[in-house]
Amino acid sequence: MTDDDQELGITESKSHNTGEWYAEVVRKAGLADYGPEGMSGFIVTRPRAYAVWERLQSFLDAKFKSTGVQNAYFPLFIPESYLEREKEIVEGFDPEVAWVSEAGTKELEERLAVRPTSESIITPYISGWVRSHRDLPLRVNQWCSVVRWEATETKPFFRTKEFLWQEGHTAHATHEDAWEETLTRLDQYESVYEDLLALPVLRGQKPDHDKFPGAHTTTTVEALMPDGKSVQGATSHHLGQSFAEAFDITYADEDEEERLAHTTSWGLSWRALGALIMTHSDEQGLVLPPTVAPEQVVIVPIWQEETKDEVLSYAEDIAEELSDAGVRVELDDRDERNPGFKFNDHELHGVPLRIEIGPHEVADGELTLVHRPDGESVVADREGIVGTVEEHLETIYAKLYAAAEETLDGAVREADDRASILGTLGQHGGYVTAPWCGEEACEEPIKEAMAAEIVMVPFEDDDPLVDEGHDETCAICEEPATRTAYFAKTY
Amino acid sequence: MTDDDQELGITESKSHNTGEWYAEVVRKAGLADYGPEGMSGFIVTRPRAYAVWERLQSFLDAKFKSTGVQNAYFPLFIPESYLEREKEIVEGFDPEVAWVSEAGTKELEERLAVRPTSESIITPYISGWVRSHRDLPLRVNQWCSVVRWEATETKPFFRTKEFLWQEGHTAHATHEDAWEETLTRLDQYESVYEDLLALPVLRGQKPDHDKFPGAHTTTTVEALMPDGKSVQGATSHHLGQSFAEAFDITYADEDEEERLAHTTSWGLSWRALGALIMTHSDEQGLVLPPTVAPEQVVIVPIWQEETKDEVLSYAEDIAEELSDAGVRVELDDRDERNPGFKFNDHELHGVPLRIEIGPHEVADGELTLVHRPDGESVVADREGIVGTVEEHLETIYAKLYAAAEETLDGAVREADDRASILGTLGQHGGYVTAPWCGEEACEEPIKEAMAAEIVMVPFEDDDPLVDEGHDETCAICEEPATRTAYFAKTY
Ligand SMILES: [Zn+2]
Ligand SMILES: [Zn+2]
Repeated sequence: MTDDDQELGITESKSHNTGEWYAEVVRKAGLADYGPEGMSGFIVTRPRAYAVWERLQSFLDAKFKSTGVQNAYFPLFIPESYLEREKEIVEGFDPEVAWVSEAGTKELEERLAVRPTSESIITPYISGWVRSHRDLPLRVNQWCSVVRWEATETKPFFRTKEFLWQEGHTAHATHEDAWEETLTRLDQYESVYEDLLALPVLRGQKPDHDKFPGAHTTTTVEALMPDGKSVQGATSHHLGQSFAEAFDITYADEDEEERLAHTTSWGLSWRALGALIMTHSDEQGLVLPPTVAPEQVVIVPIWQEETKDEVLSYAEDIAEELSDAGVRVELDDRDERNPGFKFNDHELHGVPLRIEIGPHEVADGELTLVHRPDGESVVADREGIVGTVEEHLETIYAKLYAAAEETLDGAVREADDRASILGTLGQHGGYVTAPWCGEEACEEPIKEAMAAEIVMVPFEDDDPLVDEGHDETCAICEEPATRTAYFAKTY
Repeated sequence: MTDDDQELGITESKSHNTGEWYAEVVRKAGLADYGPEGMSGFIVTRPRAYAVWERLQSFLDAKFKSTGVQNAYFPLFIPESYLEREKEIVEGFDPEVAWVSEAGTKELEERLAVRPTSESIITPYISGWVRSHRDLPLRVNQWCSVVRWEATETKPFFRTKEFLWQEGHTAHATHEDAWEETLTRLDQYESVYEDLLALPVLRGQKPDHDKFPGAHTTTTVEALMPDGKSVQGATSHHLGQSFAEAFDITYADEDEEERLAHTTSWGLSWRALGALIMTHSDEQGLVLPPTVAPEQVVIVPIWQEETKDEVLSYAEDIAEELSDAGVRVELDDRDERNPGFKFNDHELHGVPLRIEIGPHEVADGELTLVHRPDGESVVADREGIVGTVEEHLETIYAKLYAAAEETLDGAVREADDRASILGTLGQHGGYVTAPWCGEEACEEPIKEAMAAEIVMVPFEDDDPLVDEGHDETCAICEEPATRTAYFAKTY
């Protein structure tokens, strides 16, 4: 074995050292490198990961466009006075930002923030574009990167000082319209996770004390990671009228009266890639669902000198037929590598389906299909290969989803007092549901004892505690409970 | 007329005040707004312009991907020491950059530049990824924004401190491979202009003294603007081995010898949008070719109270049929606006083809088609409308291209001495070709007398002066001429 070969395999354990294992998969599967010296917290997104991000973008962007969203692009920088204005109206808004204070060879008169999020620059423009009720709803979205100078440890895609995301910003005539918008986007985020990434999520709203500063309601989709922590998968905010008031978004209504608009904002970042990689991958390396895999199928021909020509030509025909049908297929005909090396290599890189073809397969008009997630191996007829492969790709998606769903379903546990919340979280991780009075003070004791918090509360319609007449009490303070809280550890 | 209506029209003259007219089209057609106070030089790209950029991106990106390019994403910031390293090896590299020196609440140990271009951060990573000849060619591209703090006046899409672009970076085993890459990208840029934007371009190389610093050869496509100036439409650089040497991109060749790679880089920015807008638009507003127009067709129904239902239902059927066939069509059924207002509105916004439908058209099973660029109006049958519309869209593209080509063809003039170069440029603008010795000194007198320079030199194969045995002399110094220089004023 060369150095190269030794370097190839994953050496860390997913269950025992999840963090180290994750970092190893990211690096060895060629997904990302760390930033240059002096730039800790930054990563270089390599083509393999970026291709997944592009598929996610195109999936979500099509949904946005089919529901009235237009893309735009706003400046990378935000004047300090704009951020100050947001701070004044929005208590608790104090992002850790990177400041540009020199440009060219001059000191700037006013510092410019590298955008940490764009509410404060987009909202004033929306204000200028909205004149009449006919201009509403107004929806703009941008795909861009943002910078937040958090001092925590870097975890590619989960925690980086710069990250890629999209941020949508909308204005509406009524509170109800804004609420409908908020949920439309949340549905679309849920669909990214469930229909594209094979990741079931929980949906609900953040407790009031953990809303986006200034928001009326923050809604969220939460995904469970294999180490039992919850990841906030995307958020969609009903901003009420606070931003409209601060930035003066008013419109002339049909009755000619001037009215204040209602706004929303919503974002999904490349953290979704982190959740994807961490959930499905294993100790052979990356696992990707066929929906986002750069190559869905790899064909590995197995030949001896005297069978090489017939095996290769059989394999090439199959590759061409699959490719013509729109399947993303790679034929690995490298001379200098043996089949065993190739199997490991493509497992490490997360190709969902492997086709093995040797002289026996050629003779019998067959081929062998191997599923990446569980190694299941099936011999199939050469004839009808396109349909066969498509079925197997669907099966692989279903397997990944089912495994993640089973984990999630088994990870939601009930508790009704402080000791059992802490005990259950400590022993199992995952989500612990408990009746809750709604006060932030009752989250404190849990937060202090371990890095856990209320990650969400189900929507009113889904929360049995919203019924009149129930008599449950808060698991912490024993006052009447008003909502069900989902406690979990988080990243 | 309301204020709104008065504001609608273009008031500046394209031929007399090209700059003011351009700015007015950009603003009134809803393409871009200027940045906030304190951020002169920045623009907000509104959905109408961004949608054109997205079509350009998807056209070019597909070409890239079909020729072996992978997208990636590198950090927004570049450590000062990395830029310094580039400066040391590349004489003349001294970009005006924006510096981040504080982040969070701390001074940074090392200043970070907001990327002005990414050679200095991408090349070291490429160096790490290339080990063997099997890793070559290696091609990465990123779509991103860059910042260059130039103090010149803002012209949306032509000159802005932040602009959107793509930058491709590749490494190759041989000089010839890198040269082939350079020309492949130049061909693709030419195709963006000629096949997507209806803009014929000239192609060639920059004079040696105007190459990208450190490059072996800089190739360019140049577009003629209506005010007679030339715009550098995109550049593709053969970087030779200077970057490979500085950043140590070596590979083990088949014979196990360690060899130095050859690199290229190539970029196209949103300046292409500026060239598009400026060339085709007129005093009614924006003109777009159907290839990139957000709406290719607008249907304006013309009704009286008693004919409204039948006209609208006829128009809706047509809209549906076109839309089902993949035509981007909008039915303008606004009640509160009359047809004349709508005509002006869609002309201002650059919809290539208008369909007018009144009660007569309904009665006769017909409709009226009006071409945006020249107002040509044709009555056509309702039957077969999809094919008819597609033909008209092609005709509109061909009209725009032909007009631009005629202008370009008429704008290339010959001269053979200094006085006639200056006289011709002064009188007509456009391109003046002249035999040239190849020395920068012979560009100086022209540059000093007016803001004109050698914007390109045809490739050797296209340049008659490269033949042995010609006896022409440099138009300036009268030494033997080696190449044909294209002089032009530039932005
Ligand atoms: Zn309580
Ligand atoms: Zn000369």
